[in-house]
Amino acid sequence: MIKIYDLNKIDKNQILNREEEIVDVSSIVSEILQDVKVNGDSALFKYAQKFDGVVLENLKVTESEIEEAYNTVEPEFIRVLKTARDNITEFHKKQVREGFKTQKDGVITGQKIIPIEKVGLYVPGGTAGYPSTVLMDAIPAIIAGCKEIVVVSPPNKQGKINPYVLTAVKILGLNTVYKTGGAQAIGALAFGTETISKVDKIVGPGNVFVAEAKKQVFGKVNIDMIAGPSEIMVVADASANPRFLAADLLSQAEHDKNASAVLITNDMNIANQTAKELEIQIPKLVRSEIAEASINKNGKIIVAKSIEECIELANQMAPEHLELCLNDAFEYVDKVVNAGSVFVGNYCPEAMGDYYAGSNHTLPTSGTARFSSPLSVDDFIKKTQFISYTKEALQKVYKDVELFANKEGLTAHAKSVTVRFEEE
Amino acid sequence: MIKIYDLNKIDKNQILNREEEIVDVSSIVSEILQDVKVNGDSALFKYAQKFDGVVLENLKVTESEIEEAYNTVEPEFIRVLKTARDNITEFHKKQVREGFKTQKDGVITGQKIIPIEKVGLYVPGGTAGYPSTVLMDAIPAIIAGCKEIVVVSPPNKQGKINPYVLTAVKILGLNTVYKTGGAQAIGALAFGTETISKVDKIVGPGNVFVAEAKKQVFGKVNIDMIAGPSEIMVVADASANPRFLAADLLSQAEHDKNASAVLITNDMNIANQTAKELEIQIPKLVRSEIAEASINKNGKIIVAKSIEECIELANQMAPEHLELCLNDAFEYVDKVVNAGSVFVGNYCPEAMGDYYAGSNHTLPTSGTARFSSPLSVDDFIKKTQFISYTKEALQKVYKDVELFANKEGLTAHAKSVTVRFEEE
Repeated sequence: MIKIYDLNKIDKNQILNREEEIVDVSSIVSEILQDVKVNGDSALFKYAQKFDGVVLENLKVTESEIEEAYNTVEPEFIRVLKTARDNITEFHKKQVREGFKTQKDGVITGQKIIPIEKVGLYVPGGTAGYPSTVLMDAIPAIIAGCKEIVVVSPPNKQGKINPYVLTAVKILGLNTVYKTGGAQAIGALAFGTETISKVDKIVGPGNVFVAEAKKQVFGKVNIDMIAGPSEIMVVADASANPRFLAADLLSQAEHDKNASAVLITNDMNIANQTAKELEIQIPKLVRSEIAEASINKNGKIIVAKSIEECIELANQMAPEHLELCLNDAFEYVDKVVNAGSVFVGNYCPEAMGDYYAGSNHTLPTSGTARFSSPLSVDDFIKKTQFISYTKEALQKVYKDVELFANKEGLTAHAKSVTVRFEEE
Repeated sequence: MIKIYDLNKIDKNQILNREEEIVDVSSIVSEILQDVKVNGDSALFKYAQKFDGVVLENLKVTESEIEEAYNTVEPEFIRVLKTARDNITEFHKKQVREGFKTQKDGVITGQKIIPIEKVGLYVPGGTAGYPSTVLMDAIPAIIAGCKEIVVVSPPNKQGKINPYVLTAVKILGLNTVYKTGGAQAIGALAFGTETISKVDKIVGPGNVFVAEAKKQVFGKVNIDMIAGPSEIMVVADASANPRFLAADLLSQAEHDKNASAVLITNDMNIANQTAKELEIQIPKLVRSEIAEASINKNGKIIVAKSIEECIELANQMAPEHLELCLNDAFEYVDKVVNAGSVFVGNYCPEAMGDYYAGSNHTLPTSGTARFSSPLSVDDFIKKTQFISYTKEALQKVYKDVELFANKEGLTAHAKSVTVRFEEE
């Protein structure tokens, strides 16, 4: 049974705390990475056998494998995937930015936006396939203009990649998919192997091994973020429907035993009814065991005095997903300063953002929304500055720069400007 | 004497390699961080005594200390600082971005740009003071709209912060400076102490202890980047002046024995003359010992067949600073895809970007310009998405989302949309 807390009767830190099992996999991951670095493809084949239980014939998915997968997928789902693709594309196109250039009195300064050349997308495999991950990670990269976009995903025991994943790849016009997962896939993307070229940036969610591997290769290549277990926080007033609230909390709770689902409300009745609804809905779920464990561990219902107080707590927690199930929900959007993605009103369950609305579903977790952002086109570009002075423009100001450099004790810096106006 | 290589006669990897002494300070840094986390201010006082050689009375610089420092600084330098401030402000204001919001058929999607609330700027101290660091790190934060901007910098043996640094703080309208440096300062910003509030993001350059500490606290707070030793690459043709080229190479070489200064040219005469000029100029430098060591260790002159070949190599090296000392330099700017900052023409030494032109001087090093960017306003904001559906809008599409969620095996996600259209 989920616990109900009165915000004004308990220690706030107690509410903000969250239990999470931390498993240290750093040494096994660094061994795998080193192995891939040294042995390349042969290490990938070895780990496919060891971890995925399959003797692979080829690492690269062939064109005919992609076609075959596509042909097994129901046309109705392909239609839905394409609608999602189009919504996601429309949203992310608004993130495209331009560089700038200013020119004044012989001085030019500017900034260029340049796509990162090579990116690798990790798509989890295992029991299920996640075509939504392909859409969410690849579309911003495509819009940014990345030249090489490769997908890695663990194969199943038959040596195949999930057909939904391959279908998502196909409808995006991509064609490079490798059958490798786990830390070894991250190693392949970071160091390169005979078959897989090394990339500049790796994005995408994964299990603890993938997360640790991304952490270890960070610096050598760039990464998107280290994602923690999923979180939802729902702020609700009397306008909300406890059945909806319970379903929304469970949509995150079903992800993972370490997931966190928290309801904050100013209405005791909503609190009690939602707790009851959870008890009714949990047993009906396919993944009821996971959902129940998550609710018992990190599930909370918090009763505050006002919606303002609820929002304040939300900003302190900086949740990955924040639902505002409020009568006048849009009035509160601007008060939210720390959240990955905000779902506004009683008819926008978080799942709408996971698949369909167009916003990204790769979001900062564990309170990192205080300083991190959803995955976006920005993650697939880099910026370069450029400046230029004419001789005349430099002559006017070089003594200023000489003075500045000398004050910092860097006289060779000073010399690099003065030399341009000295007799030989 | 600097070495001259013929690009077409040697292994490119040999040129791309760079020697760097790596000192492992991870265990001492993690001890210091832990100490600060547990003991707060008292640890900071202890380390000030141990590392900075001073028994501090107060951690926070007082208003009168700032005034006093300001009054010791020559008005002429204050004028230069203010000009630099204005140029940097003008450049970085162009980086400000707007959110967006779209509304169609009952569906709203959008993105908000929100300043990161609390940021900490590390400003190195020691033998010299770096007012330029204050300007480059604080101005983008001010423009972004960060609420709390605090500066940390190691005190000298008299317990004072460099007057130029405090003057830069004052002309920016900031007022919070703490006398602490090294790993302990990073710990204070990450965990908070009695005096220093914890921040959401830490930016700024520092020695190996600072860099390692930033790495260790990354995740708990955000950081800008782990900066390596400085680098310059100069691409020159026959239009360039060897005296200028040598001075520009030395402006980076004087930073650090591990710094790297590389000239690439299509003109053998330029190569030979620049090598001679280096021999003439090095002994005249105040920091000649450091510059000479850096040139001997990582200095290179590379002769290529064409400027195109030079640019190609520059893109492979992805240098922090790239000068294009070319007759028709602007024609090549668009061919540069990997560089922190580009200095165009024969009258734009890199020092112009270090202090004055307006572009940022905190730049990606060690080839990370392949995937990283100069410090900018973007580093001080975060993005939040928001989406909303009316009941009618959701009704039209919820079966699509139900199908998508079910295909991924996440039936509670599916339920969170269907529940909204079920009879109770």
